[in-house]
Amino acid sequence: MGNKLKRVVIGKPMKSGELEEEKLSKMKALAVLSSDALSSVAYGTEQILIVLVTLGFAAVWYSIPISIAVLGLLTILILSYRQTIYSYPSGGGAYLVAKDNLGVGTGLIAGGSLLVDYILTVAVSSSAGTDAITSAFPSLHDHRVLVSLIMILFLTIMNLRGITESASILALPVYLFVAAIFVLIIAGLIKYVMGGIHAEVPELGTAVSNVSLFLLLKAFSSGCSALTGVEAVSNAIPNFKQPAEKNAAKTLVAMGMILGSMFIGISLLAYWYGISPTPEETVVSKIAEATFGRGVLYYLIQGVTALILFLAANTAYAAFPLLAFMLAKDKFMPHMFKVRGDRLGFSNGIIILGVLSALLVIVFHGDTENLIPLYAVGVFIPFTLSQFGMMVRWIRLKPEGWIIKLLINTIGMITTLTITLIFIFTKFSQIWMVFIFLPLVIFLFFRIHRHYMNIADELRINLESDKPEIKGSTIVIPVAGITRVVLHSISYAKSLTDNVVAVFVAFDEEEIRKMEEKWEEWNPGVRLIILRSRYRSVMRPLMKFIDTVEWKTAETDHITILIPQFITKHWWQNLLHNQTSLLIRAYLYNQKDIVIATVPYHLNR
Amino acid sequence: MGNKLKRVVIGKPMKSGELEEEKLSKMKALAVLSSDALSSVAYGTEQILIVLVTLGFAAVWYSIPISIAVLGLLTILILSYRQTIYSYPSGGGAYLVAKDNLGVGTGLIAGGSLLVDYILTVAVSSSAGTDAITSAFPSLHDHRVLVSLIMILFLTIMNLRGITESASILALPVYLFVAAIFVLIIAGLIKYVMGGIHAEVPELGTAVSNVSLFLLLKAFSSGCSALTGVEAVSNAIPNFKQPAEKNAAKTLVAMGMILGSMFIGISLLAYWYGISPTPEETVVSKIAEATFGRGVLYYLIQGVTALILFLAANTAYAAFPLLAFMLAKDKFMPHMFKVRGDRLGFSNGIIILGVLSALLVIVFHGDTENLIPLYAVGVFIPFTLSQFGMMVRWIRLKPEGWIIKLLINTIGMITTLTITLIFIFTKFSQIWMVFIFLPLVIFLFFRIHRHYMNIADELRINLESDKPEIKGSTIVIPVAGITRVVLHSISYAKSLTDNVVAVFVAFDEEEIRKMEEKWEEWNPGVRLIILRSRYRSVMRPLMKFIDTVEWKTAETDHITILIPQFITKHWWQNLLHNQTSLLIRAYLYNQKDIVIATVPYHLNR
Repeated sequence: MGNKLKRVVIGKPMKSGELEEEKLSKMKALAVLSSDALSSVAYGTEQILIVLVTLGFAAVWYSIPISIAVLGLLTILILSYRQTIYSYPSGGGAYLVAKDNLGVGTGLIAGGSLLVDYILTVAVSSSAGTDAITSAFPSLHDHRVLVSLIMILFLTIMNLRGITESASILALPVYLFVAAIFVLIIAGLIKYVMGGIHAEVPELGTAVSNVSLFLLLKAFSSGCSALTGVEAVSNAIPNFKQPAEKNAAKTLVAMGMILGSMFIGISLLAYWYGISPTPEETVVSKIAEATFGRGVLYYLIQGVTALILFLAANTAYAAFPLLAFMLAKDKFMPHMFKVRGDRLGFSNGIIILGVLSALLVIVFHGDTENLIPLYAVGVFIPFTLSQFGMMVRWIRLKPEGWIIKLLINTIGMITTLTITLIFIFTKFSQIWMVFIFLPLVIFLFFRIHRHYMNIADELRINLESDKPEIKGSTIVIPVAGITRVVLHSISYAKSLTDNVVAVFVAFDEEEIRKMEEKWEEWNPGVRLIILRSRYRSVMRPLMKFIDTVEWKTAETDHITILIPQFITKHWWQNLLHNQTSLLIRAYLYNQKDIVIATVPYHLNR
Repeated sequence: MGNKLKRVVIGKPMKSGELEEEKLSKMKALAVLSSDALSSVAYGTEQILIVLVTLGFAAVWYSIPISIAVLGLLTILILSYRQTIYSYPSGGGAYLVAKDNLGVGTGLIAGGSLLVDYILTVAVSSSAGTDAITSAFPSLHDHRVLVSLIMILFLTIMNLRGITESASILALPVYLFVAAIFVLIIAGLIKYVMGGIHAEVPELGTAVSNVSLFLLLKAFSSGCSALTGVEAVSNAIPNFKQPAEKNAAKTLVAMGMILGSMFIGISLLAYWYGISPTPEETVVSKIAEATFGRGVLYYLIQGVTALILFLAANTAYAAFPLLAFMLAKDKFMPHMFKVRGDRLGFSNGIIILGVLSALLVIVFHGDTENLIPLYAVGVFIPFTLSQFGMMVRWIRLKPEGWIIKLLINTIGMITTLTITLIFIFTKFSQIWMVFIFLPLVIFLFFRIHRHYMNIADELRINLESDKPEIKGSTIVIPVAGITRVVLHSISYAKSLTDNVVAVFVAFDEEEIRKMEEKWEEWNPGVRLIILRSRYRSVMRPLMKFIDTVEWKTAETDHITILIPQFITKHWWQNLLHNQTSLLIRAYLYNQKDIVIATVPYHLNR
């Protein structure tokens, strides 16, 4: 039944050889990997304007140079990650780059903050998507958490079904969003050029009395939140169709160009239309309204914007399992993240991501807005480390043209580092958790690593000298009476060795006498030892007896405890039987180096 | 840690030989077994008056003849159960008497309704006790369910600690209650005789216009709720010190006399004082107030009354596990109810009673008043069946003086049957559940019985002809690599037989090649078979392989699957390893008649 359900929800299992077919074409990759980055257009310009209007409306013109600066940073990041893709064709996330060039510890800082970040992405994006839905259907407002959880469940199932399938479903809204924003920008531009807009706007270069570098930097760093998600492509190179690096690089550049033009377009329109942000309405909504009025096109733009915010979470579903896989391969995370599931995705990573982000949504009752700065810091730390790693790499390898490459990464590193510092400096009250969680996660990575290393050490054998050794054998069979299961077990034991002992635990003299008589009558050719239990416990006398046997024969013999066990036809029937054999198993299993064998006897009725 | 906690809460385990010391003296038995019956004094008279006042105040004089009738019924029940005690010295609950004389089916009806009834007793009594507490401390009213659950937990722990110990703690309030009620009755009597009461009361025999036999019978049956709990002594004979029957009979008679005199005393005072019941104040409270005023004695009486209502639940803790034991001995209930725990009580019965009554309290939010009629019917059905059983017994055995004995039981049977019918007739809307639950419980009894019988049949062997048979042996070892655990397992297997095969599941060609090479280099003297898995499942190819081995060798060989298993030092470390071996075990265990042996290897780090 459970298996059938799994088939319906997840689909039939796929052969390992089908992996290549599951890989992404450029068009689909753009949809799967860029929804996080592209969705930032919905709020990037707004973030800048929110900081600027605190200086007065005259300051809004600064949004243009700041947007250009963000665009510059985007260019640097794209160029930098393009270099990374070619340098690390098997997937060059911040973890790999930092580990490779700056050492394992630094790599783990980058990897750890990205892992946590992906969980935040899913929680924040699904909550934001829910907000968009509940704005449209206010009656759902009381069920926000439920709606978010349903979204997370939906994403988890889609990703468990496989990469291609989820790409096919998810590509449409992404391209719809891109198309809608471009239509908006072009229509807005035409309207502006035709003189259809009569807004009073401060001219570029207008003097603003109380402007400070700090505030401009703050506005810049807020605008940089539009850049989260850019790293997704370079993490996911193994998901691309061959030639993977080339396809990934092209996808990255395409994404950068789309993102850049949408971002600058929105910023320009916002400036020309003289829009200042208000809490009630988004900047994009205001632009759309000014351009089209509240018609079909306006609602279409709002609708796809809500949808893309929700889909942004899907980027994390592509990136988290891959990063977890890489960390698991290096033995910093549990083995289970290395296993591909029935549909060739890393199911465990997908499930864990779903569960953890769902927990976040539940704990924060769907109000995850406070997590956004945390989430931005979590992105810029690995950005910085990754670029620093690339710098070290160029200096170390010095390939052709390395000076320019080094320059690109150096500029990138300094910028991202500055943004990280600004974040820490201006929003410490919201991001201090990073400095607790990150060390904790890294501590766990190292603990896990040590455990795997210790086990490997302990289990390693010398192929030359460590060979199997043959010893004698003693088999102990605890019996609860003379039944077919016991007969079966004794037959089995006697087929293996002559050293077989049956043990019976009795509670009173009467029982001892009866058992002795019956055993003598049966005479199965095996010695019966009767233990007297004064405390009505079967385990204690049995364990004492096994201790004695061990003490006497462990040198010369392998000791086996053979447990006769009948297995009922229906699970509920187990309630009708004392599960002493399970107790014996559990106890021995944890306590002793003794082989425990179960002789099952399946009941027919 | 868990074990230590258990010791503190329950106490140290006791030897089976200490059972006799755990048995009850008459004084303690009276306390443990009679709190249910004696507590009825707190509401018995009131139940009669509530029905009568619907006819007008003039009708309250009927309470005197009705109380005398109840007293008569009590006498009959006591005489009847006294006969039962001597006839069934090993415990003569309604279940045993009915089963013995009327057949198993009837016995199960009696036993089943008593079992359900004991659960109701605990739920109803603990809720009633809670009401008394929350009347005194209204701030606790919102935590009624919690208070009830704490009471149930307390009773459960006391009973797990052992019978004597709980008797010692519980005896005091019972005797305090008896003493307090007697002081009240005597003081009230003196006050009445000295002419200290000037109430207008209708004279005995006053004509009442609208009186009907039906209403009088209803008042009588309501008064009979004072008789619930009388059967507890005859169920619990094995808990008495030797000579058990004599002690039990004396205890029963003593209880009857105390109950009878308290009941008639309260009824007389209520009549003389001209008390009619009101919802705000109990009849006992009104009598106490009229006698002592609202002084220390008044509050003492109210206090111990509340306490005894709560302790009434304890009677069920003595009776339920014993009845469950008897049903389990006859294979109508799971074996586990036959086992005596560390402190010699039937722990499983005690725990199940606690859990089920706690569930009832939770489901009904502590408002269990509606369950009271259900609870009375649940008592009178087995009363009737038990007496009917005794009638059949006298007719069958015809001992000396059987006519009188038969007469006593016949009168008793007719009376209790009438009361049962009146209950069904007048309160069907509250008791219809009995006719759903009772058949269900009895159906379960029979299903359980059939299961045990089937298994006994299936497992029974012929001691003459069924002897152990010696066959060959094939051992299959699934390996995941070449490690110390595998070395250990191969050593073990080779010590038992030469027919050993190692199986390895590989996911790709590369893996196959590597494993083949390494195995050849190691050369442990065991053949390695490599299975190729195209769906990344270890289980499926392995199971197919085992099927093949079974098909080839099951005729001549015992097949053993030997599972190498390393055991981590800390439980959480298991999260770091794929638990494939557990999967293999679980699957084989449920599917195949193959011996599954685990070779544990305990990691040190």
